[in-house]
Amino acid sequence: MAELNATHDPARRAWLDIANQPGCDFPIQNLPHGVFRRAGQSARGGVAIGDRILDMQAAVAAGLFAGAPAEAARAAAEPSLNRLMAMGNGAAAALRARLSDLLRAEGPEATRIAAMADRLLVPMTEAEMLLPAEIGAFTDFLTSLYHTERGGRQRNPENPLPPAFRHLPVAYNSRASSVRMSGEAVRRPNGQWQRPDGSVQFGPSEAQDFELEVGFFVGPGNPIGEPIPISAAPDHIWGFCLVNDWSARDIQRWESVPLGPFLSKSLSTSISPWIVTAEAMAPFRAPAPARLPGDPAPLPHLTGVRDQAEGGFDITLEAFLLTPRMRETGAGPARITSTNFLHMYWTFGQMLTHHASNGCNLRPGDLIASGTTSGPTDASRACLSEITRGRDPLTLPNGETRLWLQDGDEVILRGRAERTGHVAIGLGECRGRIDPAPAWPA
Amino acid sequence: MAELNATHDPARRAWLDIANQPGCDFPIQNLPHGVFRRAGQSARGGVAIGDRILDMQAAVAAGLFAGAPAEAARAAAEPSLNRLMAMGNGAAAALRARLSDLLRAEGPEATRIAAMADRLLVPMTEAEMLLPAEIGAFTDFLTSLYHTERGGRQRNPENPLPPAFRHLPVAYNSRASSVRMSGEAVRRPNGQWQRPDGSVQFGPSEAQDFELEVGFFVGPGNPIGEPIPISAAPDHIWGFCLVNDWSARDIQRWESVPLGPFLSKSLSTSISPWIVTAEAMAPFRAPAPARLPGDPAPLPHLTGVRDQAEGGFDITLEAFLLTPRMRETGAGPARITSTNFLHMYWTFGQMLTHHASNGCNLRPGDLIASGTTSGPTDASRACLSEITRGRDPLTLPNGETRLWLQDGDEVILRGRAERTGHVAIGLGECRGRIDPAPAWPA
Repeated sequence: MAELNATHDPARRAWLDIANQPGCDFPIQNLPHGVFRRAGQSARGGVAIGDRILDMQAAVAAGLFAGAPAEAARAAAEPSLNRLMAMGNGAAAALRARLSDLLRAEGPEATRIAAMADRLLVPMTEAEMLLPAEIGAFTDFLTSLYHTERGGRQRNPENPLPPAFRHLPVAYNSRASSVRMSGEAVRRPNGQWQRPDGSVQFGPSEAQDFELEVGFFVGPGNPIGEPIPISAAPDHIWGFCLVNDWSARDIQRWESVPLGPFLSKSLSTSISPWIVTAEAMAPFRAPAPARLPGDPAPLPHLTGVRDQAEGGFDITLEAFLLTPRMRETGAGPARITSTNFLHMYWTFGQMLTHHASNGCNLRPGDLIASGTTSGPTDASRACLSEITRGRDPLTLPNGETRLWLQDGDEVILRGRAERTGHVAIGLGECRGRIDPAPAWPA
Repeated sequence: MAELNATHDPARRAWLDIANQPGCDFPIQNLPHGVFRRAGQSARGGVAIGDRILDMQAAVAAGLFAGAPAEAARAAAEPSLNRLMAMGNGAAAALRARLSDLLRAEGPEATRIAAMADRLLVPMTEAEMLLPAEIGAFTDFLTSLYHTERGGRQRNPENPLPPAFRHLPVAYNSRASSVRMSGEAVRRPNGQWQRPDGSVQFGPSEAQDFELEVGFFVGPGNPIGEPIPISAAPDHIWGFCLVNDWSARDIQRWESVPLGPFLSKSLSTSISPWIVTAEAMAPFRAPAPARLPGDPAPLPHLTGVRDQAEGGFDITLEAFLLTPRMRETGAGPARITSTNFLHMYWTFGQMLTHHASNGCNLRPGDLIASGTTSGPTDASRACLSEITRGRDPLTLPNGETRLWLQDGDEVILRGRAERTGHVAIGLGECRGRIDPAPAWPA
């Protein structure tokens, strides 16, 4: 690869300067994949670099790929990335290496690319981001012990953890059809719940919450009936994004016995647009979280040498709230959560192996999320249910208070991976604003 | 339409004679849709008639459709029926009317069709049936009060029903990727559960069960954020099939708190191949089940005049068990369940309206199942968990006993709608055999 500090024409590569600035989520070390549409053009795959999108369709048409990366480049140009994900992490890595070379190019290749820069590089401000894949299934886990304990304590103070929590990564099938792109408004759901007086009513949820999560897209996956051993799990974890698992707590409390949450979750789930590949995230791997004294060891099929050594991820995660009044007054969003993915009790590898352990087939483009990523401290509570418990309002810097989200409130999730000796990368942003519930149709 | 009792060439229309025999599931009054493949041919849509399949691709190529039914006929010829379902019940009804005319044709049209019969009509024995649609989501309800009470009594004898059961149709998102065609073997899952001594272990399920259910495929569906009022629900209920919701009870008990069943269900779900349209099922509609004294009335959004008058279905449902020993000795399968869909506490219309009530978007080809269809009597218990409670073995006619399904056991579901003054129709069969669990991969 060419040296980053080589001289270059500043006008031509202002986008690379932005990519190289500290704080940019999309330096050349990231190169996440997404799907976008520019006005008047068809949807297509792209790669984020600085504040630009490398239009993969244009890059393929320009003949920038040959050999092994060419097929992956064609898949990365499609309007959904399922085929790219199906090709696995090796193909993504080969494509990433070629993209990295291209974007750092000097000399004759740089001149050639410079001549096409207008066609190849789309300002992010001109692009509408779309779902990166046809998501055949969305599975949501519950793998933060802290989140689970805080929630459980409200029901059972003595014994807040569900019996299986320390033995397996608890999960449920959520709804794939209502997974949305960051930026799309989220309609407050109508729903049914029981009031404290025992009456049952139907109407707009009065306890709309968010959940700050990290998700991954499944790569090749497995045929039905054929589990994935934990040693092979990394081959099927293709790339990462932020997930806001919007949750209507009043509906959830009422509907969840005995089959789990349903309409309280399926109203919408928002994801960030850029899928950071497993290889880009590799420098930020960490040992799997240590078990606490007295905790059972995971069963052998959930215990892998490599997963124990590097199944965790050091990702700083934040949630911000932007209320209508903050927007009116020009105030910035208020940070309400700051946590780290290292707090999770189970690894993504354990989640994937557990998920397929009964022979259930996972398919390219399936989305699997971690569950709320809360840590041990008050600052790291990653949903309003933990922060306010529905009783103690959160006070925002401008004096406003919230028990739950109000119409017009926007939740912004951010994720960033930093480690000494490595250029930091980001997961970008996942944004969603609560719109009023619809009137019930006649 | 031509008269059924018109004379015809018996050799040419032997298939119609079979269709007209009492007990045939697929008389001309049914005409269900499915997808099949013949050796050496591509997958395509077809319509069942007697013991034959009308090859819709051949029928379209033969120019048998014009006007309004032609577009529906083309959609019905595709290798998945999602587009046909998206066109709604009106299109399906127009196509059904034309198919009915064609198959009863006399005179010149009959002669024309007779000349093409070999191309148009495929013996079912020569066809492999495939999933009828790309199933984007599979939702499973819990709407038999009897099933729910029997299950709940094992946990809470005083108060067996979950609090919300009488107020809303309880449901969970199940797994769409592992929905299988009738006849495909079902692998016993490996899984984790707790033994009575408190130890936690992983291995082949020791409590593999079946559940006899009825499902429907969603027609046009709704955009996200826009609920479906119960008055419009029938427009989105496209057609019906049998569903075997295989359930591993040991895994289910251990994993289900607090997020509901997951791997205990996602191992596989089997469905019958022929989707009986809403119009074909119309003569077997019945009033919604009456509420019991003291039961709460459903909330207004779940109460519809038409749904109350005809939201139920009079469908006799049976489950049979065929063990390896029965196969060896040539014994027929033993009936272990006989129930009726009239026993369900909630209607399909209520399930659909509830499902979309939070704005969750339903899409053409989504599969929604009723939950286990148990009735009040012992004979109508529609899963082994109710029949044996894991304690009292079921004794089969040949003296064999079962607490749960053993490897090699085949479960056969049948459904049939009969009513005085109407020709009876059937849902066909849903079959599945339990194969041994796989060894854990190295």
